[in-house]
Amino acid sequence: MPLHGDISGGSRLDTWWDTYSVRAEHLRESEVRSLFAVVARPEVVSLAGGMPNIKDLPLEALAESTAQVMREHGTQALQYGAGRGWDPLREKICEVMALEQIDGDYENVVITTGSQQAVDLLSQIFINPGDVVLVEAPSYLGSLGIFANNLADIRHVAMDQDGLLPDALEAAIKQARSEGKAVKFVYTIPNFHNPAGVTQTMERRRAIVDLCERERVLIVEDNPYGLLGFDGQTRPALQSLNPDGVVYLGSFSKMFAPGYRVGWALAPHAVRDKLVLANESAVLSPSMMAQMTIHAYLRDFDWWGQVKQYRGMYKARRDAMLESLEEYMPSCSWTVPQGGFYTWVTLPKGLDAKEMLPRAVAGLVAYVSGTAFFADGQGRDHLRLSYCFPPPEEIREGVRRLARVVNREKALIDMFHSSDDEA
Amino acid sequence: MPLHGDISGGSRLDTWWDTYSVRAEHLRESEVRSLFAVVARPEVVSLAGGMPNIKDLPLEALAESTAQVMREHGTQALQYGAGRGWDPLREKICEVMALEQIDGDYENVVITTGSQQAVDLLSQIFINPGDVVLVEAPSYLGSLGIFANNLADIRHVAMDQDGLLPDALEAAIKQARSEGKAVKFVYTIPNFHNPAGVTQTMERRRAIVDLCERERVLIVEDNPYGLLGFDGQTRPALQSLNPDGVVYLGSFSKMFAPGYRVGWALAPHAVRDKLVLANESAVLSPSMMAQMTIHAYLRDFDWWGQVKQYRGMYKARRDAMLESLEEYMPSCSWTVPQGGFYTWVTLPKGLDAKEMLPRAVAGLVAYVSGTAFFADGQGRDHLRLSYCFPPPEEIREGVRRLARVVNREKALIDMFHSSDDEA
Repeated sequence: MPLHGDISGGSRLDTWWDTYSVRAEHLRESEVRSLFAVVARPEVVSLAGGMPNIKDLPLEALAESTAQVMREHGTQALQYGAGRGWDPLREKICEVMALEQIDGDYENVVITTGSQQAVDLLSQIFINPGDVVLVEAPSYLGSLGIFANNLADIRHVAMDQDGLLPDALEAAIKQARSEGKAVKFVYTIPNFHNPAGVTQTMERRRAIVDLCERERVLIVEDNPYGLLGFDGQTRPALQSLNPDGVVYLGSFSKMFAPGYRVGWALAPHAVRDKLVLANESAVLSPSMMAQMTIHAYLRDFDWWGQVKQYRGMYKARRDAMLESLEEYMPSCSWTVPQGGFYTWVTLPKGLDAKEMLPRAVAGLVAYVSGTAFFADGQGRDHLRLSYCFPPPEEIREGVRRLARVVNREKALIDMFHSSDDEA
Repeated sequence: MPLHGDISGGSRLDTWWDTYSVRAEHLRESEVRSLFAVVARPEVVSLAGGMPNIKDLPLEALAESTAQVMREHGTQALQYGAGRGWDPLREKICEVMALEQIDGDYENVVITTGSQQAVDLLSQIFINPGDVVLVEAPSYLGSLGIFANNLADIRHVAMDQDGLLPDALEAAIKQARSEGKAVKFVYTIPNFHNPAGVTQTMERRRAIVDLCERERVLIVEDNPYGLLGFDGQTRPALQSLNPDGVVYLGSFSKMFAPGYRVGWALAPHAVRDKLVLANESAVLSPSMMAQMTIHAYLRDFDWWGQVKQYRGMYKARRDAMLESLEEYMPSCSWTVPQGGFYTWVTLPKGLDAKEMLPRAVAGLVAYVSGTAFFADGQGRDHLRLSYCFPPPEEIREGVRRLARVVNREKALIDMFHSSDDEA
């Protein structure tokens, strides 16, 4: 199946157009990426991106800490390391995970180049073309892209305010198996879901873990936001309920900063072995400099105090967003996130988030259409709003602008329907 | 095809043993990795590893430079970046590549997490299971692992003292095509080959590029060692001879240091587009901190002086190795590298590098068996010796120890053959 240059801008000037792999056909510019250019314009309020607000990090102290790593351990930090990651950081990561009641052995931690890479490595070691991967409806677009590149049969499973629905999950497993399909894993984001903004209750967690254990389906638990709960609580990880049945993915991108690209997977021993081999194949070893600097951060800084500062800061932004939604967009509904970066908005009947986006951008506000979070074209009636990066006053202005667009669209549709009624 | 726990240490205690992908079966611990534990013993002289010697880097100045990046640009360095890489570094990379007569547009540079990752991304976008990838005989083991994971049909093409043989390459292309196979690319290391230690002449480069252009086969030019020529010269890249027919891979690991994991690909525009999408899928974006620090190194340091220092240091080590081989191992032959890290040794007839290795380690010296550099079991009559990491006196001691083992094996074989003659 040759590519007819659709990725290379519609031209056939690509010498190699007929040599790409089937996987290359599945590489698509994400809906978020195509927004980048727009969002960079300073006059646009972006409620689209997922960039954490790291402006308050203590740069001067971090500079000194980084310099110290280089000065005292430079020949180690500048050298190749082990494919599994640096042991002292693996140990520190176990201390972090203990906050979520995980009793992890550092030997089962694999350091990756961001937790995105852990999703990629997992996909490589589990997915054959056509295998089923179960994901929430909606799910994180970056992981959906990875699953698609790995030629998975991606199936969405319904959620409610308490997260993934066990009954729907069970039905999806049984449906896939009745078709003779292998179900390789269920990918879930239990805390402060991206994009849905909901969090699994304890009861729900137990039901999902029990079901998957009974049905023998691996759980991939992606948890970049777990420490950012606005109630100051951390919730037990699914991994803590069944260590042999869950691969847990963590990240420093949101609890510290994304710029080092350091994440990790905690996996059952045999899965861990394969992840290490896949990691070595992909990048030889994760950056020692990055690992040692993050280790120094966890050792020498009040990183827990920083997490608390983030919680307060993001909570204030969440409040600004929910208050403005309440005030300006009463025709919509939305989820009430207890942490993390996002709320998931349901548009009034008849509105189309994807079609509306250019008009929103013309109105100087950006969001991500719900369609970005589905592998199957669903989501036009939804959009994701993020409150992580812009300050509260900008969030309010952004929602005000969005409301103008939504209200105008709604008025047009109402008018159309009422003229229908008259006809 | 289920895995029977062979990777998980021969046990069937892996809950997920029957759920892995076909690709996971192709993940094997490399022969180099299984040496790591051995090589770590201080009493063993390792002529096995490919770690650059970075002990002479100016750590104090690098500490100050790193601190300055954090202090002055911390909120950018700690944030997500673009999947293609940071533009100022992409521009600097074009200046570096100009030394090899590459006239590159920074827009066609993709920053990767080490150049290893560039090989991985290229494999993803080109290789369907069963597609042919042509590699030198021998070839870099890390890339062989990647091609195997991507289920390529790996075929070795003969080389001589001047590198890859065009006639053999042409025959391999025609053979594969006569079998109805797609030849996706030829992967070559033109300078100071790992592990063969040879370098393509200009005539050879032209012949290879012309052949591939005529036959319409993409060239992947892997060039981590290009600046480390002992004659002080840089050679024109294959890319400079046909920019549309070559993907060029570069790395900072050998000309500076591996610890940041920063490499790059320079690719024809349409291939570049796909590499960026694959990179975003794999890691979202390469580390901004790493990119900005390397950019500062190229901007503020005498990096060219550092390259010259490396050349002199590695040349002295190469000399120590060749002199000791001459003195202690006259029964072997070897290539004479004009740069880089490795020489490729041919053992006396009847000796087996793979079987001899445990006895060499017992004799307190380590090397890599030639078999590691072939996808098809060849290479038992060869071994790779590296002179990059140990100082000259250790290299001499290592070769002396290795000679004892080789001479003993040879004496045994000679004795066996002479008793054959008597019988």
